[in-house]
Amino acid sequence: MKLVCTQTNLSSHLSLVSRAVSSRPSHPILANVLFTANEQTQRVSLSAFDLSLGIQTSFAAQVSEGGTLTIPAKLLGDIVSRLPEGELALDDGDEDGPDENGSITVTLKYASGAYQMRGIGAAEFPELPTIEDGETANLSAEAMIEGLRSALFAASGDETKQVLTGVHLSAQDEGLEFAATDGHRLAVVTTAAHPDDAGAVEMPKLSVTVPAKALQEVIKMLDRGSSSTVAVKFDPGQIVFEWADQRLTSRLLEAQYPNYRQLIPRQFAHQVTIDRKALLSGLERISVIADQRNNIVKMTLSPESQTADLSVDAQDVGSGQETIPAQITGEGMEVAFNVKYLIEGLKVINTTEIQIQLNTPTSPAIVSPLGSLKMTYLVMPVQVRS
Amino acid sequence: MKLVCTQTNLSSHLSLVSRAVSSRPSHPILANVLFTANEQTQRVSLSAFDLSLGIQTSFAAQVSEGGTLTIPAKLLGDIVSRLPEGELALDDGDEDGPDENGSITVTLKYASGAYQMRGIGAAEFPELPTIEDGETANLSAEAMIEGLRSALFAASGDETKQVLTGVHLSAQDEGLEFAATDGHRLAVVTTAAHPDDAGAVEMPKLSVTVPAKALQEVIKMLDRGSSSTVAVKFDPGQIVFEWADQRLTSRLLEAQYPNYRQLIPRQFAHQVTIDRKALLSGLERISVIADQRNNIVKMTLSPESQTADLSVDAQDVGSGQETIPAQITGEGMEVAFNVKYLIEGLKVINTTEIQIQLNTPTSPAIVSPLGSLKMTYLVMPVQVRS
Repeated sequence: MKLVCTQTNLSSHLSLVSRAVSSRPSHPILANVLFTANEQTQRVSLSAFDLSLGIQTSFAAQVSEGGTLTIPAKLLGDIVSRLPEGELALDDGDEDGPDENGSITVTLKYASGAYQMRGIGAAEFPELPTIEDGETANLSAEAMIEGLRSALFAASGDETKQVLTGVHLSAQDEGLEFAATDGHRLAVVTTAAHPDDAGAVEMPKLSVTVPAKALQEVIKMLDRGSSSTVAVKFDPGQIVFEWADQRLTSRLLEAQYPNYRQLIPRQFAHQVTIDRKALLSGLERISVIADQRNNIVKMTLSPESQTADLSVDAQDVGSGQETIPAQITGEGMEVAFNVKYLIEGLKVINTTEIQIQLNTPTSPAIVSPLGSLKMTYLVMPVQVRS
Repeated sequence: MKLVCTQTNLSSHLSLVSRAVSSRPSHPILANVLFTANEQTQRVSLSAFDLSLGIQTSFAAQVSEGGTLTIPAKLLGDIVSRLPEGELALDDGDEDGPDENGSITVTLKYASGAYQMRGIGAAEFPELPTIEDGETANLSAEAMIEGLRSALFAASGDETKQVLTGVHLSAQDEGLEFAATDGHRLAVVTTAAHPDDAGAVEMPKLSVTVPAKALQEVIKMLDRGSSSTVAVKFDPGQIVFEWADQRLTSRLLEAQYPNYRQLIPRQFAHQVTIDRKALLSGLERISVIADQRNNIVKMTLSPESQTADLSVDAQDVGSGQETIPAQITGEGMEVAFNVKYLIEGLKVINTTEIQIQLNTPTSPAIVSPLGSLKMTYLVMPVQVRS
């Protein structure tokens, strides 16, 4: 393999695939990135795969000798990111292929220096999963980012909770639905299918749970803004996101996802419309004191004064009160929440106003944006002794 | 105590003194900030003191009732920093003073909320050291920042090394000298005395070692740019830095500082003039590989080609070579360094070119900026088996 490319290209694409490199590889080759240089297309593709998450990307290069090899991803990335802009040459200088240990000396050259690294032959590198007979859905990158971002935060970070560490994707009549819950709160978002696509009806079987970690990478990669449309393919074990010159594959979480739709109440006795930023910043101040105890904030709805009052009382530390103007329908009530759950939900919503709908201090409350995005955020109140 | 001030003022001054608040206070009051409100001057002063480092600052406020009290610094700072801009009122609401436990309820009010915190009476708060009969030197803030920044990085971070964890300040004929060493390298900087000052001759006795932690705070505070001149006062146990409305006090490190001047060679057999950024970025790339072993970089000076070649060879990882144009006088030589020491020194220098002076591969090398700042950075080479 012999190629010449720009430092900018190699550095940015290495950083892109680096997320799928094992930090604690079960086999040395999983700490490496796979180079595939194609003399005919004059392109180089980079792949990394930790056996769960796989990322592949490609870019243009002057390939004078095609071939494949793998190089330690972190070492190469750390050097390339510190090189000045300009041309770099990569060369395995070894026409006989790997030595008896599978080891190859790769040379990276730039205008005033050279680095030699020990690569490993590509033969041992596991192939990234491909989906032959699966179904495909197309979504705009914008809708995908919005859907993922609005659901991901509610997934569980606790690895023992298995299927709850993922986001559930399912086809609905209106488009693609994203749902995540950690058992205490639930976020459900529906985004419209891509206009070019016949839509969700074309893929009635889509109902999969994808690890949150993989979806966070999808957001990061799409945020780089290289594409407007994302194709989603899946089969019973894998999901593949594809756009422009990039591809991300992830295993699926296999257990049954909870039937979350039945948890969402359809009728409410109380309804509050409130400025999102005013509520969020009030909660953030209250959380300073709530933090010191049990994270509980009390919310008092007063239809007479049309205000929502927040209060916290942490003995030995202090107490606090915030008054926020709100449009309240229904009778007055008092309800308590985990302040963190409210803050996290309000942070991912981007509308000016939100709506809170409630029945009793012990039944689910629903937070939703007032605007175009179809998002439902369910939070269980906390029971407090008065 | 009753006062009204702006959120901006209170928040920025709280953040300023917060550096001197104990993170693990030996007494509860050391986690607090002392408020002193003066009805006559219509100013509030804030003080924090961890018994080693003390910081005091003051700002204008509407003081309707003077007085003193202390409030938990982190709790208050966390709430105030999250408040919107505008007026705040602080009120201890208690005309009888602290209760039998020394506890006071302090109320912080803003337009749409209120917070109550438990303060402690000011009586127990330790007084910040003052210096009555000490000597005073004046230095421009710029010279102080430059002197401190150019020496601080070379101080030891190892608390068991006692006096080496500080920076030594001493009066010289030309101005104030800053020196720091961790036993492996030594930075010495001389900055000119302030033009308004009769200069260093006026304070011949200045020879003190100040904890690096306190000096880092001096830099941060001066970087806010509120003053052009700094007054330095000292007595055998304490040093005080004073400017505008701020004051920082620190205990001194008492042991004898090493006689570092005798370590600096006066004559050299080899001299290299080299572009600082080119050398620094070459070293940073080399360090990626050197890191994996023992941090050693080899430097080969070639008068014939007028280049300094850097090289590293870490078995099982890789190797690297960098060639940097340089003006070299003296014969060719090979010398090895800890790459971290060179990088750290080159980072604090801000001239385009630097000079390296050497005698043998086992005697001290001197790195100095080519320009106005009088800085000497001594680095001991590393002995390597060839």
